[in-house]
Amino acid sequence: MTKSTVIFQPSGRRGRVNSGVTLREAAQELGVEIESVCGGKGTCGKCKVVVHEGFFEKYGINSRLSNLSPMTDSEKKHLKNGEIASNYRLACASRVEGDVLVYIPEESRGGGQVIRKAAGELDVSLNPAIRKYFVKLKPATLEDPEGDLERLLKELEKTHGLRNLKIDYPAAREMPEALRKGGWEVTVTVWQDKEITWIEPGNSERSLGLAVDIGTTTVVGYLTDLETGEVIEVESMMNPQVPYGEDVMSRITYSMTHPEGLKEMHRAIIKGLNKIISKVTKKAGVEARDILELAVVGNTCMHHVFLNINPEYLGLSPFPPAMHSSIDVKARDLGLKANPGANVHLLPIEAGFVGADNMGVVVATEPHKQDKILLIIDIGTNGEIVLGNKDRLLSTSCATGPAFEGAQIKFGMRAAPGAIERVKIDPETREVEYKVIGDAKARGICGSGIIEAVAEMFKAGIIKKNGNFNPEVKTDRLRKDEKGQYEFVLAWAKDTSINKDITVTLADIRAIQLAKGALYTGCKILMKRYGVDAVDKVILAGAFGNYIDKEASMVIGMFPDCDLDKVVAVGNAAGDGARIALLNRDTREEANKVARKIKYVELTVDKDFQKEFMMAMHFPHMKDKFPHIKNVLDRIPG
Amino acid sequence: MTKSTVIFQPSGRRGRVNSGVTLREAAQELGVEIESVCGGKGTCGKCKVVVHEGFFEKYGINSRLSNLSPMTDSEKKHLKNGEIASNYRLACASRVEGDVLVYIPEESRGGGQVIRKAAGELDVSLNPAIRKYFVKLKPATLEDPEGDLERLLKELEKTHGLRNLKIDYPAAREMPEALRKGGWEVTVTVWQDKEITWIEPGNSERSLGLAVDIGTTTVVGYLTDLETGEVIEVESMMNPQVPYGEDVMSRITYSMTHPEGLKEMHRAIIKGLNKIISKVTKKAGVEARDILELAVVGNTCMHHVFLNINPEYLGLSPFPPAMHSSIDVKARDLGLKANPGANVHLLPIEAGFVGADNMGVVVATEPHKQDKILLIIDIGTNGEIVLGNKDRLLSTSCATGPAFEGAQIKFGMRAAPGAIERVKIDPETREVEYKVIGDAKARGICGSGIIEAVAEMFKAGIIKKNGNFNPEVKTDRLRKDEKGQYEFVLAWAKDTSINKDITVTLADIRAIQLAKGALYTGCKILMKRYGVDAVDKVILAGAFGNYIDKEASMVIGMFPDCDLDKVVAVGNAAGDGARIALLNRDTREEANKVARKIKYVELTVDKDFQKEFMMAMHFPHMKDKFPHIKNVLDRIPG
Repeated sequence: MTKSTVIFQPSGRRGRVNSGVTLREAAQELGVEIESVCGGKGTCGKCKVVVHEGFFEKYGINSRLSNLSPMTDSEKKHLKNGEIASNYRLACASRVEGDVLVYIPEESRGGGQVIRKAAGELDVSLNPAIRKYFVKLKPATLEDPEGDLERLLKELEKTHGLRNLKIDYPAAREMPEALRKGGWEVTVTVWQDKEITWIEPGNSERSLGLAVDIGTTTVVGYLTDLETGEVIEVESMMNPQVPYGEDVMSRITYSMTHPEGLKEMHRAIIKGLNKIISKVTKKAGVEARDILELAVVGNTCMHHVFLNINPEYLGLSPFPPAMHSSIDVKARDLGLKANPGANVHLLPIEAGFVGADNMGVVVATEPHKQDKILLIIDIGTNGEIVLGNKDRLLSTSCATGPAFEGAQIKFGMRAAPGAIERVKIDPETREVEYKVIGDAKARGICGSGIIEAVAEMFKAGIIKKNGNFNPEVKTDRLRKDEKGQYEFVLAWAKDTSINKDITVTLADIRAIQLAKGALYTGCKILMKRYGVDAVDKVILAGAFGNYIDKEASMVIGMFPDCDLDKVVAVGNAAGDGARIALLNRDTREEANKVARKIKYVELTVDKDFQKEFMMAMHFPHMKDKFPHIKNVLDRIPG
Repeated sequence: MTKSTVIFQPSGRRGRVNSGVTLREAAQELGVEIESVCGGKGTCGKCKVVVHEGFFEKYGINSRLSNLSPMTDSEKKHLKNGEIASNYRLACASRVEGDVLVYIPEESRGGGQVIRKAAGELDVSLNPAIRKYFVKLKPATLEDPEGDLERLLKELEKTHGLRNLKIDYPAAREMPEALRKGGWEVTVTVWQDKEITWIEPGNSERSLGLAVDIGTTTVVGYLTDLETGEVIEVESMMNPQVPYGEDVMSRITYSMTHPEGLKEMHRAIIKGLNKIISKVTKKAGVEARDILELAVVGNTCMHHVFLNINPEYLGLSPFPPAMHSSIDVKARDLGLKANPGANVHLLPIEAGFVGADNMGVVVATEPHKQDKILLIIDIGTNGEIVLGNKDRLLSTSCATGPAFEGAQIKFGMRAAPGAIERVKIDPETREVEYKVIGDAKARGICGSGIIEAVAEMFKAGIIKKNGNFNPEVKTDRLRKDEKGQYEFVLAWAKDTSINKDITVTLADIRAIQLAKGALYTGCKILMKRYGVDAVDKVILAGAFGNYIDKEASMVIGMFPDCDLDKVVAVGNAAGDGARIALLNRDTREEANKVARKIKYVELTVDKDFQKEFMMAMHFPHMKDKFPHIKNVLDRIPG
């Protein structure tokens, strides 16, 4: 049966469903609640949803209205003309016939659904850095000609108990107009109970913020309702700094070797974020100046370049960051086109190579609140590891390289349509089954695909513990390339859209060995320093962390042995951390405290590093035992 | 004997000296100390001064090197070639032969001279809002890779006891570079003990600030050394908003009637101040970014437009200002090209028509610290009056119009070369003696000139108490113009540079009557509200306050009778107030408290206003007695 990808916004829940099911059924299957009074009979018209048209690279789908069954009469009856023009459908009447991205408007969301949880499953109490206060003032008279600000401050103190407020300059500039336009009724935005950052005429209840995750490769912005916690719109884009260098070190080098390099990269990311702001606000039908607060995560280099701070010293031993503590900068100082009074909060930094993105992961996974010992592995272009619990925390950074993101792999590609993302190899026949993102023909392999491919090749005896191919294996798929190097064919040319055999080469395997060896070594040295042999829980974070196969990652030895049931994948936890910091200001202070508590371990200065790294290059390890996957390892032929 | 104007910088002391005296003698005469070891024999070479070339409109002089006697051999011996090229002279050897503006370099200033006093005679203890701190840090190492900011903060706490400092964004951006450039030795600028606003490599002791007085007509900037209080350079310019309207009301109207009007005027003043910054820093051999703090005064409309705040509501009853309290705004938010971290402090506002300029006057004259009751009259395009002592203060604003500044007077002009500034009329012959600014031929009358002219005409019986001309008076100078209106000739065409008789017309006298009547009424109503018949001291402030003749101003009845010995003129006290706020942050808090303590009295709602104003239009008053100038008034003929 054909399957299609369905993604529901704003929760971001996605899944593959059988073609032919209704959107309402798909939502039920994926645990997304849609309002329904008539029980799906098409008579109540309560289950209105909006189909987003367009190609969504980040999800690997091409959403079209025509990917749903034609509009029924009952739908036409319930939808207004404007709604039909805006791609509205009834979820109970639209059948899935291809990939679709569907937005559930607030009025159609199931009452049982806690919106705050739906926003990517965050469980955070709402206490944002800004609050809005509505006040009614007595107009000035000749007998009482007191100035606008003092009149406002007195009322804010009287009605809302706010004392000693300062006023930010743009708010002061706006004040006299807002007071008159609103007939002396205004809504005042107050930051951290101490500064008036904006004033609007009349009663304006909605408070919006933007959480931002600046990844080395991808930038994501989450437009968020600060009163409900709901993510209203999400936009992602390739980091516009990519042309200056694929990874952190190459961007640092660019900034060192080009006099205007830092400024160019800084401008690129600001311009990119302004684009995201423009898109999410347009989609949500609001203005850029409605964004009153921002929270930003990113690795230390992204953090510095975003702030236009020279990242050069991050690339030179001893790699000190410009700062550890969080910093609050006015959006206008950065050229960000949010509200001119908006504050941008950057999460703290642990060390030169463990940045605000990792602090986002810590904020989202809260190892500092646990009794049990967590091992948190955040996999991106760089790998960051945090180990510990409420008593003690260690962190480190491993140069994994971009192999896990599909880069430096012969047929590697990003997790986009056409990417092989799942691989199974029959240990008897060595025949391959694979799954491609977006139901397209294969054109490459993404990060999760290469991990599974290598794990399966190891399990099927095609590659040996040391990563070398086993020439004894009998299959057409194992062959030598033009240079005489072994390679393994995952997909035959005829099954691809590129008319080439898609292979895994020895070089690919070496790249994976280096990457996983670096992570394993990091985990192991941290555990040694911590004085533990095993951990209570392993958390895999990272953009592709949701899709990674836990068993495969343990089979290749990305981290030391543990009970597979104790391994959880949490997806983009860095972005979650930014959202949490946006929604709850207490977490910011907590993050500052935790950041200083986490002790950074520099792996390369550990006396055992070289030896450990060498041993960790083996699958799953040269010496360490993996009792929890003994049954899998024991079945490996030869 | 010919006299020449000599002005000494940086103190700004000026005076008329006999031509032929040496600069050293002129300095002694004017109370300016110049270093002298040999006692003026030309042998020590310690009295080097620099002659500023050019026309200085603000002082009414045309300074040239050739206005001094030719260079002597002893001078050539003591001056280096570079110094000669830079217009250096020895004060003891250069004789005054025309107007000169002379700068006394620091090394030539007399040791006995307290520089802080020389800066316009301010007596203020130095406690500026910013302080510089020099720190040496241990460089980061692999064992101690702590971030730059935390390393810096720890050292600032350890060495200087500074705790809980925040860092302003531009300083954060600058920090990593400054630390490396300075070899881990930096100078940190800290604002109000709480925020790092700038970081420079190495040891940079000099701390500069700019005091700014934005007058409706004239803008002045004082580049000030915050460590010594010394005014290093002064620059003034016509307020670039003048093309948008001569007075406050016409600028408010401009902003109301032009959609971009406010923005245009805001940009004009910012551009003008950037020009002043560029000039003073260039002259002082420093950079714009060396200006680390600014203090600004201006009337409420100038204050609002400077901040780009709509001044419209200042022009509409009940005239509330946008704010009373002082406000601190970052220079960069205003587009001012000072240091990007520099703070701009605007003094508080008393009421819609009693602005930060008047608070400057209050800060400089300190009525709130006196037992005696002061009557402070600040004369500009608007007149502001403050009455009271430490127990109680009242203020008001009078629409004097610009007559006292020479505007709306037929031959009125600003106090520039060619302006008649002093007038004497012989009560017997009605012949006129006058003094012209800059030893030029007369071309008009400035504010102090018109006041004296009217007072002298009244004293000589040429005009009557009600301001009308007395046709009985026998003199060629009293005549009728082409419309049949009386006018009085001050200067005959042959003695002018415009080849026209310079006259005082009936309309001129009416303008002066309205202006002085408004001031007198303001003083009187305030005194009535205060419950006093007389005051202990009258302070005349304002740009031309230094040059105003106390007796003349009392003869025309600008303020109620009092002992002339108790009348003092303090010059531009508003600018002094800005300088005091720049040099001492405590005065800022004090100003906020005092501003809220001063009770504003709206004259026009007083039931006696019309009657009082009518009576005050008379010279010196219709009914009030002036016992302290009885001898003068009794001598008036007729």
